Amino acid sequence: MSFFDSRWVPCPDHVRDLGAGLPAGFRAGAIAAAIKTPGVLDLGLLVCDAEDAVSAARFTRSGVLAAPVVVTQRARVHALRAVIANSANANAATGDEGMAAATTMQQVAGAQAGIDADQVAVASTGVIGVQLQIGSLVDALERDPPQLTAAGDAEFNQAIMTTDAFAKRASLEVALPSGTVRLSAQAKGAGMIEPGFATMLCFVQTDAALAPETADLLLGVCVKRSFDRISVDGQLSTNDTAILMCSGASGVRVAPESEDEVAFGVALDALLRMLALLMVRDGEGARRVGRVVVRGAGQDEVERCARAVANSPLVKTALHGADPNWGRIAQAVGMAMAHSHPLALDIDIEGIAVCRDGAAVPYDAQALDAAAAGGEIEYEIGLGSDTVRPAETEVFFSDLGHGYVTINADYTT
Amino acid sequence: MSFFDSRWVPCPDHVRDLGAGLPAGFRAGAIAAAIKTPGVLDLGLLVCDAEDAVSAARFTRSGVLAAPVVVTQRARVHALRAVIANSANANAATGDEGMAAATTMQQVAGAQAGIDADQVAVASTGVIGVQLQIGSLVDALERDPPQLTAAGDAEFNQAIMTTDAFAKRASLEVALPSGTVRLSAQAKGAGMIEPGFATMLCFVQTDAALAPETADLLLGVCVKRSFDRISVDGQLSTNDTAILMCSGASGVRVAPESEDEVAFGVALDALLRMLALLMVRDGEGARRVGRVVVRGAGQDEVERCARAVANSPLVKTALHGADPNWGRIAQAVGMAMAHSHPLALDIDIEGIAVCRDGAAVPYDAQALDAAAAGGEIEYEIGLGSDTVRPAETEVFFSDLGHGYVTINADYTT
Repeated sequence: MSFFDSRWVPCPDHVRDLGAGLPAGFRAGAIAAAIKTPGVLDLGLLVCDAEDAVSAARFTRSGVLAAPVVVTQRARVHALRAVIANSANANAATGDEGMAAATTMQQVAGAQAGIDADQVAVASTGVIGVQLQIGSLVDALERDPPQLTAAGDAEFNQAIMTTDAFAKRASLEVALPSGTVRLSAQAKGAGMIEPGFATMLCFVQTDAALAPETADLLLGVCVKRSFDRISVDGQLSTNDTAILMCSGASGVRVAPESEDEVAFGVALDALLRMLALLMVRDGEGARRVGRVVVRGAGQDEVERCARAVANSPLVKTALHGADPNWGRIAQAVGMAMAHSHPLALDIDIEGIAVCRDGAAVPYDAQALDAAAAGGEIEYEIGLGSDTVRPAETEVFFSDLGHGYVTINADYTT
Repeated sequence: MSFFDSRWVPCPDHVRDLGAGLPAGFRAGAIAAAIKTPGVLDLGLLVCDAEDAVSAARFTRSGVLAAPVVVTQRARVHALRAVIANSANANAATGDEGMAAATTMQQVAGAQAGIDADQVAVASTGVIGVQLQIGSLVDALERDPPQLTAAGDAEFNQAIMTTDAFAKRASLEVALPSGTVRLSAQAKGAGMIEPGFATMLCFVQTDAALAPETADLLLGVCVKRSFDRISVDGQLSTNDTAILMCSGASGVRVAPESEDEVAFGVALDALLRMLALLMVRDGEGARRVGRVVVRGAGQDEVERCARAVANSPLVKTALHGADPNWGRIAQAVGMAMAHSHPLALDIDIEGIAVCRDGAAVPYDAQALDAAAAGGEIEYEIGLGSDTVRPAETEVFFSDLGHGYVTINADYTT
């Protein structure tokens, strides 16, 4: 099956799915460091061999930043050459002891890779408020250093998974006007997801050569159109991190404002949107993915309405139950648009008009039931049918089912 | 068992629980009008016999107002003498046809009670976006008019329940300095609950004599401290309505700024807070009730943090599972306080300190586990331990369990 398997994110014409493997200039691996469960991969290392590597990064906007986020923000974020990442412990709300642990991870990874510590990013995911056993983590790393290879992306990805039901990674070949480059990514994310500027964790590599400004611009734009547009449970994490690293090993330079930049940007955009969609599809206990598109007069109001619908437990349980109960959508929009009665609200589900100008309209209930039973359901909302609607936004969201409750009520995650 | 059965809402000394019955000057009853299921009470009528009755009302701030809300807002809200209320259909997002149906309900109820239509409040609760079958509703009302009695509060309450697992009503005797009065209330609410200015539906009656300004002031203040401080699922309804009606039949006048007003206000406050707490306790599928108290420098920030914690599905599933996973509280506060790192965050659960100045502190894990297994869990959050904290707020919230998913994923409600 192709990586691009959603009607919402078609594979661009100049992109080919390679299945696995890192671009030239990158190596990765992972070990089982017994951070929680012995024998399970939980510590990954990814290294870029290019001394002049270029990078860009985005982080959570949370007011409670995990120690690894703070440590990485203080590193040389435009010249990162390595990532050390662990699962099973977020190293968040851990104070000075947590900061020391994250700094130690950075230093040990740098020493093992032969890279300055300030070019090493640190990322963690897992339980919040529990100290990382840094001594045994370092022991494990020194006793059994990860074998770094160009095929190590699968192991690296495995090591950063927590409640993820499946891996989220890709390896793509991208035909640019000036030559062919590669693009790969490893991501994790299934719960505590409504990223602010980034996702849970996502690491992207390319052998294209990008200037730091280009890498930063492209990552910023693409993150806004992908991880910034999804929600599993409306919960911003303390650890969200997205990093793009460019080795330049292909010899193909992506110049600013060139056709190469456009083509590279299209590929990166599709890659991150598909990864974001996979996170929603893997939303804890999820069965269906919803996409809400809101059109209205102002960007602020369409954003508020889209988030209100995507995060409504009533809409999400209806999505789970394949119940096309659009009254709950009207309720969520009414909540987001307080004191705006009467609202000239239009609602369509899978192209079927159910509400016009704030009131129910007749529709084929059987056709609607059938449409609501699919795996991907699209909701279109119009605010004010008689006005011009220059603003539009979308949010992808998972449903809310018993699995979410089971995962989150019965285990400390 | 006493109506006041929570440590958070003690019974005031001058209040006595009567169990049932309406104050002097009020009669109520209900019928089965087959709005959804034949044979089930689903249409209630409550009448005040005093021609000079005084009333006050609060409504949802939703941008999608149900037709009965609009109709009641246009009525004489300070001189209401009757309430007609139905369950099983919200009459929301129903356009002109819905407005006509709500107006017809108002007129027919007025005619049956011998009261001007503009002194009749209309309230509905149930599914959104489905037209009310007003013809058969009127037929049922004329064929089988409700028997109105002073003991009809139980039937009336029954008629306004939807997914409620238990009735929420009270009948109290209140000893004021100037004499003894009675206070009764019937409420419903189990889901789609994070009221803006009011609750789902709550009707309050007293035989005390209040000026319209006094009734409005007291209802407004008490609603802000009760229905405005609860959340089941963070979802503002299209139909929230709270109405206080005063017959004056006791002959006891509650004068503005008198000791009577203080004593009456204390009783009304306890009544509404206990009803609000019952709604949370009956939160769809709920097992436990949480109370989050936030103290900080500004009212806006404590409000945002309290709502973020109360509405976090991660906090709510942990509450359900009796898991004292305070890391999820830190996450929710971090989300509410974006871009504020580092936060000097303090967290206590049932009086046990688990986080100080943003970092985990050692605690007795066994004692914490035991505290988290109770029916009522209190979370205290401090924002900035070294600063003065003049602002404080509280929100009562239900947990999120399998029952919520079952109720909302499997049925159109």
